[in-house]
Amino acid sequence: MKRILVSVLSLIFSAAASAQTVTHPVIVPDIPGYVTMKGDMHLHTVFSDGTVWPTTRVEEAILEGLDFIAITDHVEVGLTKRIRDGLFNCDRNKSFEIARDFAKNRGVIVIHGGEITRGMPPGHFNATFVNDCEALSAASASSKNHFEGMTAALKEARRQGAFLVWNHPHWNRQAPNETVWHPEHSDIYEAGLMDGIEIFNHCDGYSPEAHHWAVEKGLTIVSGTDAHTMLASRVDYVHGAFRPMNLVFATARSEEAIYGALKEGRNAVFAEGKVYGDARFLVPLVDEILKIVSVTRSPKGVSIRIHNGSSIPVQLEKSGSTAYGYIRSITVLPGSDCTINVIPLDKGTKMDDSFSIGFKVMNFFVDAGVPLDYTLKVK
Amino acid sequence: MKRILVSVLSLIFSAAASAQTVTHPVIVPDIPGYVTMKGDMHLHTVFSDGTVWPTTRVEEAILEGLDFIAITDHVEVGLTKRIRDGLFNCDRNKSFEIARDFAKNRGVIVIHGGEITRGMPPGHFNATFVNDCEALSAASASSKNHFEGMTAALKEARRQGAFLVWNHPHWNRQAPNETVWHPEHSDIYEAGLMDGIEIFNHCDGYSPEAHHWAVEKGLTIVSGTDAHTMLASRVDYVHGAFRPMNLVFATARSEEAIYGALKEGRNAVFAEGKVYGDARFLVPLVDEILKIVSVTRSPKGVSIRIHNGSSIPVQLEKSGSTAYGYIRSITVLPGSDCTINVIPLDKGTKMDDSFSIGFKVMNFFVDAGVPLDYTLKVK
Amino acid sequence: MKRILVSVLSLIFSAAASAQTVTHPVIVPDIPGYVTMKGDMHLHTVFSDGTVWPTTRVEEAILEGLDFIAITDHVEVGLTKRIRDGLFNCDRNKSFEIARDFAKNRGVIVIHGGEITRGMPPGHFNATFVNDCEALSAASASSKNHFEGMTAALKEARRQGAFLVWNHPHWNRQAPNETVWHPEHSDIYEAGLMDGIEIFNHCDGYSPEAHHWAVEKGLTIVSGTDAHTMLASRVDYVHGAFRPMNLVFATARSEEAIYGALKEGRNAVFAEGKVYGDARFLVPLVDEILKIVSVTRSPKGVSIRIHNGSSIPVQLEKSGSTAYGYIRSITVLPGSDCTINVIPLDKGTKMDDSFSIGFKVMNFFVDAGVPLDYTLKVK
Amino acid sequence: MKRILVSVLSLIFSAAASAQTVTHPVIVPDIPGYVTMKGDMHLHTVFSDGTVWPTTRVEEAILEGLDFIAITDHVEVGLTKRIRDGLFNCDRNKSFEIARDFAKNRGVIVIHGGEITRGMPPGHFNATFVNDCEALSAASASSKNHFEGMTAALKEARRQGAFLVWNHPHWNRQAPNETVWHPEHSDIYEAGLMDGIEIFNHCDGYSPEAHHWAVEKGLTIVSGTDAHTMLASRVDYVHGAFRPMNLVFATARSEEAIYGALKEGRNAVFAEGKVYGDARFLVPLVDEILKIVSVTRSPKGVSIRIHNGSSIPVQLEKSGSTAYGYIRSITVLPGSDCTINVIPLDKGTKMDDSFSIGFKVMNFFVDAGVPLDYTLKVK
Repeated sequence: MKRILVSVLSLIFSAAASAQTVTHPVIVPDIPGYVTMKGDMHLHTVFSDGTVWPTTRVEEAILEGLDFIAITDHVEVGLTKRIRDGLFNCDRNKSFEIARDFAKNRGVIVIHGGEITRGMPPGHFNATFVNDCEALSAASASSKNHFEGMTAALKEARRQGAFLVWNHPHWNRQAPNETVWHPEHSDIYEAGLMDGIEIFNHCDGYSPEAHHWAVEKGLTIVSGTDAHTMLASRVDYVHGAFRPMNLVFATARSEEAIYGALKEGRNAVFAEGKVYGDARFLVPLVDEILKIVSVTRSPKGVSIRIHNGSSIPVQLEKSGSTAYGYIRSITVLPGSDCTINVIPLDKGTKMDDSFSIGFKVMNFFVDAGVPLDYTLKVK
Repeated sequence: MKRILVSVLSLIFSAAASAQTVTHPVIVPDIPGYVTMKGDMHLHTVFSDGTVWPTTRVEEAILEGLDFIAITDHVEVGLTKRIRDGLFNCDRNKSFEIARDFAKNRGVIVIHGGEITRGMPPGHFNATFVNDCEALSAASASSKNHFEGMTAALKEARRQGAFLVWNHPHWNRQAPNETVWHPEHSDIYEAGLMDGIEIFNHCDGYSPEAHHWAVEKGLTIVSGTDAHTMLASRVDYVHGAFRPMNLVFATARSEEAIYGALKEGRNAVFAEGKVYGDARFLVPLVDEILKIVSVTRSPKGVSIRIHNGSSIPVQLEKSGSTAYGYIRSITVLPGSDCTINVIPLDKGTKMDDSFSIGFKVMNFFVDAGVPLDYTLKVK
Repeated sequence: MKRILVSVLSLIFSAAASAQTVTHPVIVPDIPGYVTMKGDMHLHTVFSDGTVWPTTRVEEAILEGLDFIAITDHVEVGLTKRIRDGLFNCDRNKSFEIARDFAKNRGVIVIHGGEITRGMPPGHFNATFVNDCEALSAASASSKNHFEGMTAALKEARRQGAFLVWNHPHWNRQAPNETVWHPEHSDIYEAGLMDGIEIFNHCDGYSPEAHHWAVEKGLTIVSGTDAHTMLASRVDYVHGAFRPMNLVFATARSEEAIYGALKEGRNAVFAEGKVYGDARFLVPLVDEILKIVSVTRSPKGVSIRIHNGSSIPVQLEKSGSTAYGYIRSITVLPGSDCTINVIPLDKGTKMDDSFSIGFKVMNFFVDAGVPLDYTLKVK
Repeated sequence: MKRILVSVLSLIFSAAASAQTVTHPVIVPDIPGYVTMKGDMHLHTVFSDGTVWPTTRVEEAILEGLDFIAITDHVEVGLTKRIRDGLFNCDRNKSFEIARDFAKNRGVIVIHGGEITRGMPPGHFNATFVNDCEALSAASASSKNHFEGMTAALKEARRQGAFLVWNHPHWNRQAPNETVWHPEHSDIYEAGLMDGIEIFNHCDGYSPEAHHWAVEKGLTIVSGTDAHTMLASRVDYVHGAFRPMNLVFATARSEEAIYGALKEGRNAVFAEGKVYGDARFLVPLVDEILKIVSVTRSPKGVSIRIHNGSSIPVQLEKSGSTAYGYIRSITVLPGSDCTINVIPLDKGTKMDDSFSIGFKVMNFFVDAGVPLDYTLKVK
């Protein structure tokens, strides 16, 4: 029998081997001192309650040109039914392993994670950069009490060196009418068991409350699609959309560097055409997105031509700079150019060699409802 | 322990429930007497050597607006490694069952199939509309000899009522330099064990030889993506592309009607902007695709405005009709209108109430290299 | 000589006659009692300081599926240089006439307009539905004083039955740092010479001040592209974008009905994915955009499937309805479906036959910064 | 009065100045020794029988990233009605001058041309790189006889140094049933008054006859849109299409170099996804389009990863190379990667350091119906 198998096998050698790979990559520039690593921190597969095999998550990452993904299947027994009921004969690390093996030589970093899934409070947390989801599962199962089970699991995750994130505080199933920071969250936070918080979740959208808490408490802002199904059903690729994603400002193209960046809060979120993050990253990011192509001076004023070579639109509104007249509102779309004419409002004013004009970037937010202040410098 | 599980479970109730479903549906009209059922007859999953879970095939069908798909995992032991090696604890019908259960209430018909996978000759065959792939697997394994194993499996499939298709006769691994109809194929054909033949396979493209054999021998032409990976990596959705697909002209929107149509050769193939099929279906299809919006008569001639409301381009070249002058080459793109001006070449000729102009449809083929003759009738 | 001309002419008969017309139509539903007429109220051509011939404005309207456009070239002598300097031998009504003649039988209504172009205050005004731009030009030229010249021109326009709009109050050239309602605007308003105000201008974006003034003073909100160049250079059609446009709720598909609707304030503005207007139109518009496809009841709750068949995204946030749990934030994209699961928060609550759930529509604005309240009714 | 004009004028200073410029550039690589200049050799404006102002042709070129355009309005009196009838007060060089002036500093080269428009035979000819269309017009008008008038005009164009092209030999108005090379064309050709021939015209499509005559007689193949209306109505930009265009292999980015290349036949045509031209240019073009990203060797064979970074698809079919097995048909789409696995068919064969595999490029044509032979060399 063995011989037949081998001979049959030798016939096939990957029917899909000579294959086309269509991509639709998101383009985001690096910033000085850091590489911008694009990734998804929250993904499910059929190994918990999702509908896709782990390799699909890697193929989706390649489609969008992501640098990394975290596989974060639920770790609880009740949520890993195919393992529990015996369809899959494996442990709870398998979904990560399959994705990681497939990603090898495909240029995508796969991060080992698990979602600890309890009632509110405290709700759901993601533990990423772990090495054993079985231990997380056991710890969560150690108590019927949600807070105790969660705390046990978070401690186990911390022992494994995890990066710990409170997921979707605004999920309607756990926060039906308002997003609440419960005393239990203070306990977890004070115990050093909360590194970040999801401010954007593809199922639930943006949470201004979570964003503000992150700023206030020094938590890393995080985005996750929380995708359970195939992403092409959720993201309108045909019209140029991308999934919500993290822009991690890392010191190198490595898993370690992503971890370091997340621990130190070097992350921004790009979701539905908006960017959320700290000004110390968003200002250089806009610097790199908006490239000055030419500066033309005339007796009347100065004409600045700008090119946006990235996938991120930049929506500018004039702010300050009351000595100059220039466009009060303009969106610089991905792949397009714009020209900004600047004139001195007092005709006596000379526009000397270098000058600056101020904007608020209306789709870049440094806190909930607070647009980024940006100064365009012309030399 | 049971109680905890239940309480944990009650927290989640499908995190993805309130979800967006993006679609990019292919639009193909019905023709008189038949509904046009769009579908894919050749799909793999992780249950053989693919990279996607069966539910993904259903989600992909919804994305493109397909009416049906066939799950056709390889049935051989050596190609169902995850079952053989024990990762999956199930039989070889599981991939179909998972897809079928997921498709319920989602409007997609899932056809039970299996690919019988042997060396050339005779190569690979798809058996669809079967009810037990384990029996197919056992039959294929009954002989080391490729022809004998295949014949045994095809007979078993026939016993189950299958529709039987010779897959990708032009696959380079089995036909490296030319596409060959071997004596074994004659034997199978004469034994009544070949109903159709793949003339288009997404991995291997179009086979003119297969198309011609189908016409010559009365085989149903069939298309299959033979997809092993996520289709979004293979089909350029961002630029409006669709996968290769069958256009089955069925008497009803049911699995039975699809079966009946395929058995009777009521199928066309739409692939990479081209349509292949019999003129008795392609002529009415063009009739339904090209809708005359207006006819304007003037002393000089007649102006015909046409709208293409389908997803299928129609590339026309003037043919015959030497008494009239009109455009010699025009492509009517999906979603667009075109105007055709017709004048009599002999100015004495009256263009009376009704007249016809002839075309060859350069992207519709009734045989390999033979474009469809089409007459546009104006009343 | 005459004979040669005719014989040469007879050779050509429109080389472009057998032509394809590609369209990319915006889809917006009618609302009960009104047809939704989509149009652009502010367009320039080479007859003032634009770069396109008037027919191009009609072709652009066909491309996007607009129902009407207004040609509003500047009327002043200094801004109609090609006429003044003799390249064009015509009067200032010519651009309208060319567009109107070309639009005949092409399904686009062309409105005769002119832009009265003075310094601030009072700035620029559009007079549409006029019949003689020469008289407007003469009236504007009657005084060096901007207010006096404008008033004279507005009175002349009023005499012609015009609809009068204050254009781009936020244009940086006339409002470099803030948008100001000058005493002169009060004078014009009180004299009954201001019917509407541009709240969106493609060059300057949205003006929250103008929007609020419109609501406060009962002015019709108006949008104009103010396009001087080819629109395909300004609107990202490749990624599915549309120009900013008016959605006029008219009693019929006629110029008269558009006029009547604008005079009575039956207009909304659709621009960059957002809609601005009065709740009495926006509520029925959302009713027509979001079609309930199915309602599925289970012991746990109710699942509502919604389809958005329009080109307008609808961004919902839960609001009120504290007795129910359901998604707190979801965007229903054009062409896509979404499913909203509703459960009673108090398990004792019965979800009887009909119920309602509340939302704020975050991209529909009834006043500056004020999203629309919307109730989804399930029967 | 003068003073008022100036003061009014000073208010406006280009309302469109701070503007977005959306682009959708075609990407075609240079080939060794030449820059690939992309351009349109046949364009009309309102100065003959078109519907667009000359500046629109420049804006359209910028949209698609073209390097050059030729303005080729009809020169005959009967076809320049707006000049003849006095709406335009100018001569027949004006459309070129307007386009050229607008193009300055916008990176587009505008070529001065005119279309000499006579009955068949000999039909229409484009004279480009001329300096006076009035002289062409007068020469064409010098005889009622089509051949004589054409010959006179071509001689005048030659005197001006023109590049002379027979336009759309397959236009149905002049060749209703077949494309004919009349004795008059031999006369013109032998008199040295035909440098090129349109093998692709956007109104009439591809002419295999013209292509073959070009190869046979050493004429430069040329493409022209012959656009009379706005191109966005004819080209499906939304789905990623481009206009038909010339790929001129020039020694420099200058008008002179384009002229030199056209005179020497260094041109290819890219239209509707196909490329037409001489193998000495098409082979290096494919070399530059298909970049080998990686070559992976295993005991079984060699895996070659290829990236297509251009806007031109490449459709490959295996040809020759019978010692190796590899994909028999694959299309490498713009922006996508593909992997080609090569194995020796005789297992004894060593795949040493360097080897070659043969293809026919099914969408690149060196003559009518003759695909390009291409060898992919792996080192």
